[in-house]
Amino acid sequence: MAAVPPSPATPPPAALPTPPTLLVLDADPPPRLGRLTGRVRVVHTDEASLAERLPAADVLLVWDFTSHAVRDAWPGEGPRPRWVHTASAGVDHLMCPELTASDTVVTNARGVFDEPIAEYVAALVLAMAKDLPLTWELQQRGEWRHREGRRVAGTRAVVVGSGPIGRSVARTLKALGITASVVGRVPRTGIHGPDDLDRLLARADWVVAAAPLTEQTRGMFDLRRFGVMQPSARFVNVGRGQLVVEEALVQALERRWIAGAALDVLTSEPLPRDSPLWRVPGLLVSPHMSGDTVGWRDDLGAQFVELFERWAVGRPLRNVVDKRRGYVPGH
Amino acid sequence: MAAVPPSPATPPPAALPTPPTLLVLDADPPPRLGRLTGRVRVVHTDEASLAERLPAADVLLVWDFTSHAVRDAWPGEGPRPRWVHTASAGVDHLMCPELTASDTVVTNARGVFDEPIAEYVAALVLAMAKDLPLTWELQQRGEWRHREGRRVAGTRAVVVGSGPIGRSVARTLKALGITASVVGRVPRTGIHGPDDLDRLLARADWVVAAAPLTEQTRGMFDLRRFGVMQPSARFVNVGRGQLVVEEALVQALERRWIAGAALDVLTSEPLPRDSPLWRVPGLLVSPHMSGDTVGWRDDLGAQFVELFERWAVGRPLRNVVDKRRGYVPGH
Repeated sequence: MAAVPPSPATPPPAALPTPPTLLVLDADPPPRLGRLTGRVRVVHTDEASLAERLPAADVLLVWDFTSHAVRDAWPGEGPRPRWVHTASAGVDHLMCPELTASDTVVTNARGVFDEPIAEYVAALVLAMAKDLPLTWELQQRGEWRHREGRRVAGTRAVVVGSGPIGRSVARTLKALGITASVVGRVPRTGIHGPDDLDRLLARADWVVAAAPLTEQTRGMFDLRRFGVMQPSARFVNVGRGQLVVEEALVQALERRWIAGAALDVLTSEPLPRDSPLWRVPGLLVSPHMSGDTVGWRDDLGAQFVELFERWAVGRPLRNVVDKRRGYVPGH
Repeated sequence: MAAVPPSPATPPPAALPTPPTLLVLDADPPPRLGRLTGRVRVVHTDEASLAERLPAADVLLVWDFTSHAVRDAWPGEGPRPRWVHTASAGVDHLMCPELTASDTVVTNARGVFDEPIAEYVAALVLAMAKDLPLTWELQQRGEWRHREGRRVAGTRAVVVGSGPIGRSVARTLKALGITASVVGRVPRTGIHGPDDLDRLLARADWVVAAAPLTEQTRGMFDLRRFGVMQPSARFVNVGRGQLVVEEALVQALERRWIAGAALDVLTSEPLPRDSPLWRVPGLLVSPHMSGDTVGWRDDLGAQFVELFERWAVGRPLRNVVDKRRGYVPGH
């Protein structure tokens, strides 16, 4: 295996006596890989054996996207996979300076999660508007207490993150009559730049974080930004836990700077049973499931197989991550 | 006052020395009535005094729409209000044979609740698809348990009730990518007739009851109809509690004939604290609030004032209920 990997457009040597080696970081076999039978040698690995097995792999499939092991195991030099695919939209859990500097191509699961996450955000927004969490708390106590809900049509949302997920969230909120603005790293048609963010936050009824975790976005929802929001505003995070300074969010809720929040992603996952975040009034916590709908593992498997078939014949890969930025740029 | 009331198009005598008497069934004054100052004599009544005060009233405003007192207090003959308006979409709580037979015009709050109820149904549908009630139960226990949600786009809904509420529900569900069919009393363009109901129920992922309570609809969701539905189907009632045979729904849930249900309206309201309905697995109970969003009382008050102003100058009223059918017919 060459020490310098080929560019993404270069096929693996067609005349290799053995098929390329696909290293899968996960104990369980992903679905749909059967379609590659005979065309790839599949090797499964756990986190402990990853460093030992990486040099012999042509392709690394990070199927266990909750693992941070790639960062630690990635070889500084010498043989390494020419292509790394992660079955997740975010790549923050695997990027390290050596991987960024290498010629190894990184791809992600762009596209699989967009609409499921958009529906999940709509579910949270409507549930908060209609006060459903309190309704179900009252149901547990057998208490009939009529309240007034809020309309969502005519309210304003800001979606932070202009990738396919953020744009899909905005589209779904608009379908419910919500005025939704999208904020991205650079302004372009229909997308606001970072300079507009605070002005939009100050008028928003709903603030949705759907950005990748990068050096620019880490901790962007801090005490100052929660202070800019309206007392009636509600905050939803479906991006990455580290976009939010969690202590600041707790303070903002306790001081009633904002009216409520829902976190589907957290700095520490799984959230420990003794975390005080489970019990903050006005804070809904869900276990990082916004994008995960019945059939999602199948979709992720099928997506990898499709990418593999492009790679195997030397066609350019899709969903190629800009490793310095930490996401797939462009539309 | 004439024993035989005038037709709805006939104005009250313009030369009356006193303004017409508006009897309001509620202790609290409805908002917006201030606009009628000097043009109407407002008398408030509770349920106990209603029968005594009805004969002297020109107009009855049933502001407390939870009351069934009109049915009992309506005079069999002799002087009575020429117009009854109820601040609700349903009129089942006030209709009685004597009122139906009389020339008294009945109007309702058609239009005020359509979009709020549609949003509420969307909230319930999305919450059930994303399993939010279990998520919040797990949150109370500090338990991180990842599950898979379901997509709503691409699923099928049947909305029973082809009035403005049912049609608005269907419109909102369609905006979320759901294929929504509407069933009404008579088939017309875009609306299925009762003959299609069972066939549609058998294929539906979501069944939404949004019909008025009439002799035709009472108890229509019985054991047979729950038996027709798919085991994965979920049932939502935002119409009237009596559309549903509640024991049949409980059986259907316990036997897993259907996957879940949400009742915003119940046969007995408020639902007594000791009702077993509070604790049926898979059943969500909310306190008849689907149409009630911040500002709704204002909207109801403004709607009555607008109708009054038409009535006072002899223009035809809107939202005139077909008293035999029990709802406002047509589009």
